[in-house]
Amino acid sequence: MDSRVEHHAKILVEWSTEVKKGDMVIIRATPESHDLAVAVHKEVAKAGGSTVTLMSSEEISRAFYDGADDETLQVFPKHMKALAEQADVYISLGAPMNTKALAGVDSKRMMMTSKVNQKISDIILSKRWCSTVHPCRSFAQQAGMSMNEYQDFVYGATLIDWKEESKNMYLMKEHLERHNDIRYVGPETDLYAKTKGRIWIASDGKHNMPSGEVFTAPIENSVEGHIYFDIPFMQQGKVIEGVRLKFEKGEVVDYSAEKEERTLKEIIEIDEGSRRLGEMAIGTNRGIKRHTLNMLFDEKIGDTIHCALGRAYKNCNGMNESAVHVDMIKSMIEGEITAGDEVIYSKGKYFYEM
Amino acid sequence: MDSRVEHHAKILVEWSTEVKKGDMVIIRATPESHDLAVAVHKEVAKAGGSTVTLMSSEEISRAFYDGADDETLQVFPKHMKALAEQADVYISLGAPMNTKALAGVDSKRMMMTSKVNQKISDIILSKRWCSTVHPCRSFAQQAGMSMNEYQDFVYGATLIDWKEESKNMYLMKEHLERHNDIRYVGPETDLYAKTKGRIWIASDGKHNMPSGEVFTAPIENSVEGHIYFDIPFMQQGKVIEGVRLKFEKGEVVDYSAEKEERTLKEIIEIDEGSRRLGEMAIGTNRGIKRHTLNMLFDEKIGDTIHCALGRAYKNCNGMNESAVHVDMIKSMIEGEITAGDEVIYSKGKYFYEM
Repeated sequence: MDSRVEHHAKILVEWSTEVKKGDMVIIRATPESHDLAVAVHKEVAKAGGSTVTLMSSEEISRAFYDGADDETLQVFPKHMKALAEQADVYISLGAPMNTKALAGVDSKRMMMTSKVNQKISDIILSKRWCSTVHPCRSFAQQAGMSMNEYQDFVYGATLIDWKEESKNMYLMKEHLERHNDIRYVGPETDLYAKTKGRIWIASDGKHNMPSGEVFTAPIENSVEGHIYFDIPFMQQGKVIEGVRLKFEKGEVVDYSAEKEERTLKEIIEIDEGSRRLGEMAIGTNRGIKRHTLNMLFDEKIGDTIHCALGRAYKNCNGMNESAVHVDMIKSMIEGEITAGDEVIYSKGKYFYEM
Repeated sequence: MDSRVEHHAKILVEWSTEVKKGDMVIIRATPESHDLAVAVHKEVAKAGGSTVTLMSSEEISRAFYDGADDETLQVFPKHMKALAEQADVYISLGAPMNTKALAGVDSKRMMMTSKVNQKISDIILSKRWCSTVHPCRSFAQQAGMSMNEYQDFVYGATLIDWKEESKNMYLMKEHLERHNDIRYVGPETDLYAKTKGRIWIASDGKHNMPSGEVFTAPIENSVEGHIYFDIPFMQQGKVIEGVRLKFEKGEVVDYSAEKEERTLKEIIEIDEGSRRLGEMAIGTNRGIKRHTLNMLFDEKIGDTIHCALGRAYKNCNGMNESAVHVDMIKSMIEGEITAGDEVIYSKGKYFYEM
């Protein structure tokens, strides 16, 4: 086995979820992430945990949608709930066989199942949990890379010194929380928001692997100014590019996109909350050298910021509610981030030495 | 998808486990049986059930053995217990990636985990459950076949008219239960046992797919005579061939094997119960044309009988106890089976027309 797979597993078990003796662990894998599942089992066993392994795949989900009527889609899986309740740790090893296997499934039906499963998601989010990606061909293809290149990409982002990263992210969090606002300035961009009373979270690989972002929920009606997101992103199977947003009193008052403006319009018009920002964040992972249309990686790219339209995280004290949470990313290599009178980041340089 | 996979799934869901609206279903799959898992999900969804899908593989188990100390091996997976308790149906889709992945693991340690998991197995066996095999390269290789040939083999055994098979098996059960003994006569074989008070079970695809056997547990000290098992079988990773056993008052008093006699000796000497027969059975599945060193199929070959040294099934009213249950098979195409004064089978002909 590629020693990087073993290293990846070690990080997930030792750093991300801190598995210890007697822990009940759920590992969720796909046929494509079987190798990582094998490596994770060995590490969990070394730590003294006990495993149940779930299989998921887009094709399995698709088959279920194809076979089920709406009533069946809403049957509550109480056996899954029982499993989740008894678990201490949940580790998800993403690796689709075909990222498009759910194309054509009515999004209303997908909402239906995610609503039914909300209670189970909530249980899992109350445990020690971590989501990661195992390099696979479908993601390589989506990223426009060969499998070898994509492996290098994933491990470049993942197999880093998380203790050191964490230290820096917590420093950034402290700096940001000393102030009551945040401002992004750069090409075609000057965006301001108040953050008083909000919590900045240092995402240091405990829940996402890789991670590398410090994020908060801005005060809902305080967002003012304009911003240009120069990094493409995927939503509803569409690649949206070159989004420009203008805010007044927290609401989008003008918008455009160089590609897929219609999809952007649909997002903004979903509900009251999708016109407002639920998240403002700073990407810090310099192991991620480029975007790959996979938000787990893209939003953490070093020297970027991102904002999300829609739902805010409650653990930031955010209050914006929405059916969606859509992240959009901007390179800051020519920009500056300030909080109050303090420069947090300027043109490739964080306040701390990196 | 191969329409045979869909047919297979339909049999498992409709015939074997009779999934109905609101059923909580556990599907256990390996990366190699993913296609069948997809098809089963569609059928379960059509029937109105809700699924949790488990992933298993020999490599995952191996990694766990490699990583765990003996204490960890004995940690009870209470999350798995909770899942099993809440389930109504359990469908296992076997398809190893490598049948030898557990080679070299100490059998004592394997016993340890099966002991720990006994409670969970018991829970699952109290539900509607079925085990099957999805055609895969490792089993094709073990059977000495190409993948295409092996697919034909599996579906030839599986995609048959189970309602009709069941009718015939129940007829055979009734015939057998009208009498108090059973006798196998054939080349180098004359074996007799009493069966009064014992139940003959018609295994008609509700728990094993394929199935096709009618079996009981003989009265422990009543087995007399000698038998020659001409079909090779695998135990402890070894292929044992040409076993001859001689019984007096239910106990093996003489034995030999043309190949792997040492392994046979080990089996017989494991405990008190492994010297006695726990099972006597008649194979009835004529869709299975040859042996493939996989007991799920081999013991059901039409025109065969098999006997097992070791543990008896409680639902036959069997009482023999042992750590093992080792099936051995004999072709009866030149033999005869009688119960009391009734001929149950003679040289290619069951009492009923087939």
